[in-house]
Amino acid sequence: MTTQTLTRKLYLDDLQPGQIYRSEGEPVTMDSESIKAFARQFDPQPFHLDEGTAANTFFKGLAASGWHTAAATMRLLVEGGLPLAGGIIGASVEEVRWPRPVRPDDRLRVESEVLEVRPSRSRPEQGIARVRTTTLNQNDEPVQIMTSHLVVQRKLSPLIQK
Amino acid sequence: MTTQTLTRKLYLDDLQPGQIYRSEGEPVTMDSESIKAFARQFDPQPFHLDEGTAANTFFKGLAASGWHTAAATMRLLVEGGLPLAGGIIGASVEEVRWPRPVRPDDRLRVESEVLEVRPSRSRPEQGIARVRTTTLNQNDEPVQIMTSHLVVQRKLSPLIQK
Repeated sequence: MTTQTLTRKLYLDDLQPGQIYRSEGEPVTMDSESIKAFARQFDPQPFHLDEGTAANTFFKGLAASGWHTAAATMRLLVEGGLPLAGGIIGASVEEVRWPRPVRPDDRLRVESEVLEVRPSRSRPEQGIARVRTTTLNQNDEPVQIMTSHLVVQRKLSPLIQK
Repeated sequence: MTTQTLTRKLYLDDLQPGQIYRSEGEPVTMDSESIKAFARQFDPQPFHLDEGTAANTFFKGLAASGWHTAAATMRLLVEGGLPLAGGIIGASVEEVRWPRPVRPDDRLRVESEVLEVRPSRSRPEQGIARVRTTTLNQNDEPVQIMTSHLVVQRKLSPLIQK
């Protein structure tokens, strides 16, 4: 956990549409070995496993699994990219797109824009924030765009230790 | 890769709305160690890392990261759950929901329903299939519901070796 996470904890009450939060620590490097290791475990398809075979596929070269990019995005959010007091808890995801492949040695960071904030009627201690998270490579090109609905604690929540 | 994947390769031309495909091999077991290992790498939050700490959180016990469930789902699809000729290539995901947590030792399988089939106008060798994939636990309860848009090859594709 980064210092940022410890010092800036956001509650639903702190969020407003239009706010943008960015990961400020080290980018996640998607090196060739980690791309293949993820693929061997979860997405064993030729275009994620081997440079040579990948050259003749849809991706025309080794590319990270989209789920690897999604997982790396989660790590960046959890490590301070979006410092929510109760953690990053997805109720659902509305959309995920991968506009371009993640290639070996791409360095990823995230930017999240708050789109909507909805206190819960039935559970006064929490609410939902609708957030668009864009994952960018070292050239500031989006490699993943995701809109998610996150469960966010309110300041009165008994579950949160301030 | 399973025998099923090698023997039944589906092209866009084979798909019709209403068809259901199921993973028929071994379920994926989400044991406690693999839940924590994924979390350490990609989603280091208390409710995914440690049984004791998890008891006092939103999840009231250890639960797999939703991205771990998504990755395990991908593995089941790739290993024969949806034997598409060109592999499982997501253009985008329209929705992902996690209706209940995945708990240690849950055994997961997948069912995919073809919702829509759209040949591409600009690229006659491929098209898009809109598919709803439900990930179920050993009690046949859905733990993830995902609707995705998959790039699927047509029979005339030069990229596919029959």
